[in-house]
Amino acid sequence: MADHNTCPVLTPDSVRAAYSLISPYIHRTPVLRSKTLDRIASTPQEESAFKGTAFEGQKPATPIFRLYFKCENFQKIGAFKARGAFHALLRLCSELGIDEVRKRGVTTHSSGKQDNLLAWDKSNNSEGNHAQALALAAFTLNIPAHIVMPSISTKSKIAGTRAYNARVIFSGSTEPERVAIVGEVIKETGAILVPPYDHPDIILGQGTVGLELQTQVEDLLKDSDTENNPKGDSVLNAVITPLGGGGLLAGTATYFSTKPSTNVFGAEPSFEGGDDGRRGLAYGSRIPTVSTLTIADGLRTPVGEINWTLGGIFAVTEQQIKDAMKLLLERLKVFIEPSAAVPFAVILFDEDFRRIVMKEGGKGGWDVGVVLSGGNTTVEAVCRLYKES
Amino acid sequence: MADHNTCPVLTPDSVRAAYSLISPYIHRTPVLRSKTLDRIASTPQEESAFKGTAFEGQKPATPIFRLYFKCENFQKIGAFKARGAFHALLRLCSELGIDEVRKRGVTTHSSGKQDNLLAWDKSNNSEGNHAQALALAAFTLNIPAHIVMPSISTKSKIAGTRAYNARVIFSGSTEPERVAIVGEVIKETGAILVPPYDHPDIILGQGTVGLELQTQVEDLLKDSDTENNPKGDSVLNAVITPLGGGGLLAGTATYFSTKPSTNVFGAEPSFEGGDDGRRGLAYGSRIPTVSTLTIADGLRTPVGEINWTLGGIFAVTEQQIKDAMKLLLERLKVFIEPSAAVPFAVILFDEDFRRIVMKEGGKGGWDVGVVLSGGNTTVEAVCRLYKES
Repeated sequence: MADHNTCPVLTPDSVRAAYSLISPYIHRTPVLRSKTLDRIASTPQEESAFKGTAFEGQKPATPIFRLYFKCENFQKIGAFKARGAFHALLRLCSELGIDEVRKRGVTTHSSGKQDNLLAWDKSNNSEGNHAQALALAAFTLNIPAHIVMPSISTKSKIAGTRAYNARVIFSGSTEPERVAIVGEVIKETGAILVPPYDHPDIILGQGTVGLELQTQVEDLLKDSDTENNPKGDSVLNAVITPLGGGGLLAGTATYFSTKPSTNVFGAEPSFEGGDDGRRGLAYGSRIPTVSTLTIADGLRTPVGEINWTLGGIFAVTEQQIKDAMKLLLERLKVFIEPSAAVPFAVILFDEDFRRIVMKEGGKGGWDVGVVLSGGNTTVEAVCRLYKES
Repeated sequence: MADHNTCPVLTPDSVRAAYSLISPYIHRTPVLRSKTLDRIASTPQEESAFKGTAFEGQKPATPIFRLYFKCENFQKIGAFKARGAFHALLRLCSELGIDEVRKRGVTTHSSGKQDNLLAWDKSNNSEGNHAQALALAAFTLNIPAHIVMPSISTKSKIAGTRAYNARVIFSGSTEPERVAIVGEVIKETGAILVPPYDHPDIILGQGTVGLELQTQVEDLLKDSDTENNPKGDSVLNAVITPLGGGGLLAGTATYFSTKPSTNVFGAEPSFEGGDDGRRGLAYGSRIPTVSTLTIADGLRTPVGEINWTLGGIFAVTEQQIKDAMKLLLERLKVFIEPSAAVPFAVILFDEDFRRIVMKEGGKGGWDVGVVLSGGNTTVEAVCRLYKES
């Protein structure tokens, strides 16, 4: 990976530069709206939902939402990770020269999982999406890729990675075993490690989600009447993204860092301590290891060192994620993985968040961008998810 | 409904005029592409798939597809039907004056079903989608709507229709019972009947799908390199739509009628005689009644009188529809109803169709528009569908 010392600083201009580099290689994914989901989100929660919580006996908040869903499930390889992977490789090429990168190749490791409900270890599909994104970017740029995955990976995952001509190297199933094999690969081939989130080039690549979203919202609102655009501007009051390793949230926050009117929030699962971002902020120190089997398996990763001090983090329960995901499937008509539903679950169910929107947005309400981060799941996994409830 | 004698003729210019009328009221739905689905569609079928068919022992066709999926599942009310309903009402208003239409109101009937696998009668969600589209259009234009639906309709369907301020009138559960009540409503209120498909105003409204698709493909291809656009033009070689009542297919064929390079095809389910369009063409006479419980419940309707002479109709089995739908869910990441998967099933599995594409497209292949007609189904219905297989 490009040396930290020579990386662009984390500014909106660097996100714009990243976008110029990667835009020939990625999809400009659509932004979807739904009046039904706006109405549901803008309906106060039932008071009974507060039983046993800090809000018991209090009047539910009455926030007003206009939502803009950024559909990164339609991105190449089915997740935003393609942005960071292309940016990391294009930056490597501009720094070392493409011949040097092609000579050495690139490497990362993957949990090798295909199915988010048959997790055979505590790794997550965040890595899986990154490994596939790296394989695609390397294939496109004609760079050798060495992907380390457990020997017990699903056949379809192995075949999927090999479809991009990547070399698959098998390892044991735990993360330390995979990391050890990656070390051997680097020693043997000189391949360059491309980490999944905790690197400026990855963060800037993921930040292009925010840039594209803001541009698209401006296009959508420029001819709108007062019913659809009561504020009369095209400023997003907030953008909310899933938080796993934190590359997407950090990149989005970077892009909006000079736009104080746009608040950037992160959304996590609370199950089994998956809310390491929120807890770390509360304790004043990053939580380096997380061990949760939340259904939002893309978000099991502990937040990275660069990313952990981001503010405004909210966490939701497994049932809330499932309820939000069902609405997104049936009403927005998008096929998404559970991790992608976490921000909308915060909007629907986190009473602290809803109070902020009510207080800050008032009668005009808030225009909120919601990042649907990916869609890498299966019909079988979705059906198992709803069978249990 | 506007008198047939004063309706615009079925020409591309009339579709353009319809588009000018309705475009402030509808979504310009996105067009999605997937290299993975292009590759799967361009892979020859296994010879074993031909066992017991006319193709047994023959070499599978080797067509090359570049697919453009027009996502009408993201349309208002979740289906293309919003286009026809808005056009029908706007035309009525321009013909009779909006005051007269508001005085009389409009009416139609609905099967009242919510769930495509718990059909309690042989009606279909094509009507359900139309009734909801009419309720939305009437609500938007401030016209009273009287929707007749069976008293045993699902609560969510009744609530959904009432959410648009429509008056719900209950009837018995069979179609003749519903039609009888519609007659009473008309007698009592003077309401104007808006049929679901067999009327020029509906056909022209649905035809705007074809117009939008062609425009979007031109935008997508204008800066493409030879890898993505080997033909070097932006002509769609074919558009394939589901065929139920035939409004969508007829409208699309109308729009492309002066573009002989673009072939328009219809796709039907074959189960229990659902392929009435294909059979009618073969027999030389429209088949007026159909009684099928195909999973593609939007396509149970017999093709309408205006629409039935359309050519180029292909039919697929229930299993083929399920296989195509699973690929669209998992790879294209769109949530669709089974009816919407029927055209892609033809592309994947109809060897006659694949031979045409191989012969006409040759090494350059064909650019094919695929209309994903709607997404009105539920997680439960989808899970039941795949539990059976």
